[in-house]
Amino acid sequence: MAQAPKRALNVTRETNFPEWYQRVVREADLAEVSPVRGAMIIKPWGYGIWELLQQELDRRIKETGHENCYFPLFIPLSFIAKEAEHVEGFAKEMAVVTHHRLKAIDGVLQPDPEAKLAEPLIVRPTSETIIGDAFQRWIRSYRDLPVLINQWANIVRWEMRTRLFLRTTEFLWQEGHTAHADEADARAETMKMLEVYRSFAEDTLALPVIAGEKPENERFPGAVSTYSIEAMMQDGKALQAGTSHYLGTHFAQAQNIKFQAEDGSLQLCHTTSWGVTTRLIGGVVMTHGDDDGLRLPPAIAPRQIVIVPMLRNTPEDANVLEYCDGVAAQLNKALAFGKPLRALVDKKPVRSADKRWDWVRRGAPVICEIGPRDVAGASVTFMRRDDLRDGDKVKSHALSRDSFIRFAPDLLVEIQGALYREAKQRLDANIKTDIKTFDQLKEYFGEASENEEEEGGVFKGWVRAPWSRPSGAALDAVSEKLKSLKLTIRNAPLGQTSPQGVCIFTGAPALEEIIISRAY
Amino acid sequence: MAQAPKRALNVTRETNFPEWYQRVVREADLAEVSPVRGAMIIKPWGYGIWELLQQELDRRIKETGHENCYFPLFIPLSFIAKEAEHVEGFAKEMAVVTHHRLKAIDGVLQPDPEAKLAEPLIVRPTSETIIGDAFQRWIRSYRDLPVLINQWANIVRWEMRTRLFLRTTEFLWQEGHTAHADEADARAETMKMLEVYRSFAEDTLALPVIAGEKPENERFPGAVSTYSIEAMMQDGKALQAGTSHYLGTHFAQAQNIKFQAEDGSLQLCHTTSWGVTTRLIGGVVMTHGDDDGLRLPPAIAPRQIVIVPMLRNTPEDANVLEYCDGVAAQLNKALAFGKPLRALVDKKPVRSADKRWDWVRRGAPVICEIGPRDVAGASVTFMRRDDLRDGDKVKSHALSRDSFIRFAPDLLVEIQGALYREAKQRLDANIKTDIKTFDQLKEYFGEASENEEEEGGVFKGWVRAPWSRPSGAALDAVSEKLKSLKLTIRNAPLGQTSPQGVCIFTGAPALEEIIISRAY
Repeated sequence: MAQAPKRALNVTRETNFPEWYQRVVREADLAEVSPVRGAMIIKPWGYGIWELLQQELDRRIKETGHENCYFPLFIPLSFIAKEAEHVEGFAKEMAVVTHHRLKAIDGVLQPDPEAKLAEPLIVRPTSETIIGDAFQRWIRSYRDLPVLINQWANIVRWEMRTRLFLRTTEFLWQEGHTAHADEADARAETMKMLEVYRSFAEDTLALPVIAGEKPENERFPGAVSTYSIEAMMQDGKALQAGTSHYLGTHFAQAQNIKFQAEDGSLQLCHTTSWGVTTRLIGGVVMTHGDDDGLRLPPAIAPRQIVIVPMLRNTPEDANVLEYCDGVAAQLNKALAFGKPLRALVDKKPVRSADKRWDWVRRGAPVICEIGPRDVAGASVTFMRRDDLRDGDKVKSHALSRDSFIRFAPDLLVEIQGALYREAKQRLDANIKTDIKTFDQLKEYFGEASENEEEEGGVFKGWVRAPWSRPSGAALDAVSEKLKSLKLTIRNAPLGQTSPQGVCIFTGAPALEEIIISRAY
Repeated sequence: MAQAPKRALNVTRETNFPEWYQRVVREADLAEVSPVRGAMIIKPWGYGIWELLQQELDRRIKETGHENCYFPLFIPLSFIAKEAEHVEGFAKEMAVVTHHRLKAIDGVLQPDPEAKLAEPLIVRPTSETIIGDAFQRWIRSYRDLPVLINQWANIVRWEMRTRLFLRTTEFLWQEGHTAHADEADARAETMKMLEVYRSFAEDTLALPVIAGEKPENERFPGAVSTYSIEAMMQDGKALQAGTSHYLGTHFAQAQNIKFQAEDGSLQLCHTTSWGVTTRLIGGVVMTHGDDDGLRLPPAIAPRQIVIVPMLRNTPEDANVLEYCDGVAAQLNKALAFGKPLRALVDKKPVRSADKRWDWVRRGAPVICEIGPRDVAGASVTFMRRDDLRDGDKVKSHALSRDSFIRFAPDLLVEIQGALYREAKQRLDANIKTDIKTFDQLKEYFGEASENEEEEGGVFKGWVRAPWSRPSGAALDAVSEKLKSLKLTIRNAPLGQTSPQGVCIFTGAPALEEIIISRAY
């Protein structure tokens, strides 16, 4: 096997993590910036990942009794205004449609003044209001409950500083919206979907996460309780990877979502909402990528095994191609993760070495290089993307054709597990639990660099510390102190035993432990 | 079995087809109007149909070598302006985003004057321009060709008169966009996708269609050739169910999509585009529905077999439910159309008879009613939605449990075929071929009623007649004459043998035959 370049990317995670991230997204051909400020073009390899992620999450959402719907892209301004009155901290950065026609005036195409809308329309920044309006029409009696709805949709929130997948003006997501007869049922739903997200992130994306409750000041506006799953990126920062909200009767009150109970009384519904977005793909990149590019968990790899035929413009090439096609056809008949395995023979008219490195950067889990010697020996030579190198050398494995084909599904499961374990070890090893005071916290994290967003910064990981769950102004004061260190409270992990010690902020007896870290 | 109401809907196709259509959409719970003018809410049963349709078409689009991408929802006005300059007949009814923030001014939430966009953004009415811009960046050499891209997306076109699924301001669709090195390759692609649509419509939706080329004045603006598949609705009108366009080098010229050929010269790409929309669901309703509601082809029925347990609030109910669950579990292990069969036990707390009629109106292909007698006799009693009645009576069938379970996949295939054959016979029997002159055409169709859109009108079907393919002003004159009869030329069917006779419009020797009809 040819000598490898030192690394397939010319920037490393160590030297400049943000630049490394952008580079992986580009070199793996996941997405690119578009001519529309802050909106991205998701390219086939990136969209293929999204499709697999979506299929699997959709299956889990349906398995838990939810049905998909589609609601309008536009929301009347009056609906948003109602929510704005109702909810403090309501974000107003959103795209506003004011006209419904273009007209050439003096040869310049522009919004036609005569086609101004009586009421502006907002491009949905989330669909609580328009779905709530439907719930209010659909729900009459306790017999109609629960209503369990999900929607896959595009969302627009005007963002000033954007980064592909992580923060974009337009993104794709799913948003679940449910209505229940009482608090217990709605809370059970909130926790059920948090668990769906946790298991999906861990099983399918190989992202180990901490599930927990957000502090009061990080709740979704209008929510009674907000829960999240948080994943640790390779720069030690947290990425919020999914949220689930118990909304109490706040939205039901604002939108008059009522039902007649069994006893005949008219009652407000308890509602929930929950969502994950295309940002998950950014999380996959920052969790599994290495200095050679992306490494994809096989469960979401659009191509799990890529075969590069080693051609030399000789008559032997035909045999090599036939052999490769035969191997791919057999692989594609196998099942991996309960679905047909996805193997490809890459026949692009490009040098074999370029193809190999292209698939390395794209993160294909298994890359086979098959030449005349494999054909003669009925063998398959392959690399594992999760375990690519021995020092600077690329590790190559060989198996008999039959063994490789028999072993392939297990190999993919093994790679999935290896990526998960690696990330899980990083997470477990980097949650610091010996910080007892805010001064220690400050000393540990140090002052955040002004240019941190551009440069990355030193790996610090997370701190898990006791707190007394301050509220209102006391919590605001804590947040301000944390903000000066560019820190945030991520969540209070679920399943805690009785708390020990005192709050690192207030010195009062601790009520629970929280995760503190820098974050995306 | 209880005596049926005369029909499950209280309006018939015969008396008022448009009203019948709206009623079916509502009573089958497919969709409803939303508070946003012209936009619909697609409800779970309707969206479930869309998901199945989408899965199957997506499979066929990928099988023919296309990859999915995602492009921005917004298109800069300058992109649209470029196309407007380029293309006559460019429609300007589209949603325009002019602001990116809301602000409360004097207590009223409104677009913030300080957040006016320098350049307005258009909500995509189609994505040729933004995808063309990407092609121009992506394509460098003949080695990059062909580029074969598809996108599933929401689309907005401001419509004045809307009807659920058939014409809505926002709709869902797929749009394919491809770039090729030469005309032959691009034309082959155009025809390949037309054939994908034809076979998909016939196999999956059980919609018999006529595939053919649109006359010059019905082409997509900027296209060199536009092809369509046309389906006949039960009121005799045509519904354009899919289009495929060969765009020549027009869009490539406007957007500078060029490649270096093998000989080193710089050449324009030849491009194509093709799409189908949620209007297909309207076509399914108007093709297969009857006076009892919707009838769904099993291939796109979210539930193919629905089991209604006949409960009587007696201890026996538990046995009935257990039996029903057992039957459903066995059915769900079977394959129908190559996918797991979709059976459901309807346990809603509603009277059995109401459930039965609900599923009749929703068009579930097979409805089982299972009571204690079935349990005792190990049998299954069922109705076929495609063949529901004998006169006014509902036809009921019974099979042993084992036979029913063994027979179920074939039964679904049989129902799919029966719906197709019924529609195909209607199509074949209602294409009139003996019209020789425009006067005969006028006499046959008669003056269209002013209120036809509301009332429907008399069933006339289609006319297939020879014409001389007039162009330019001569074709405009033909269109005007047809317009006075509310008629349009649908297409010139593919696969014609050499034409006979003279043109019904010009009297000149015929070049081909065309389909003429009223249409949606």
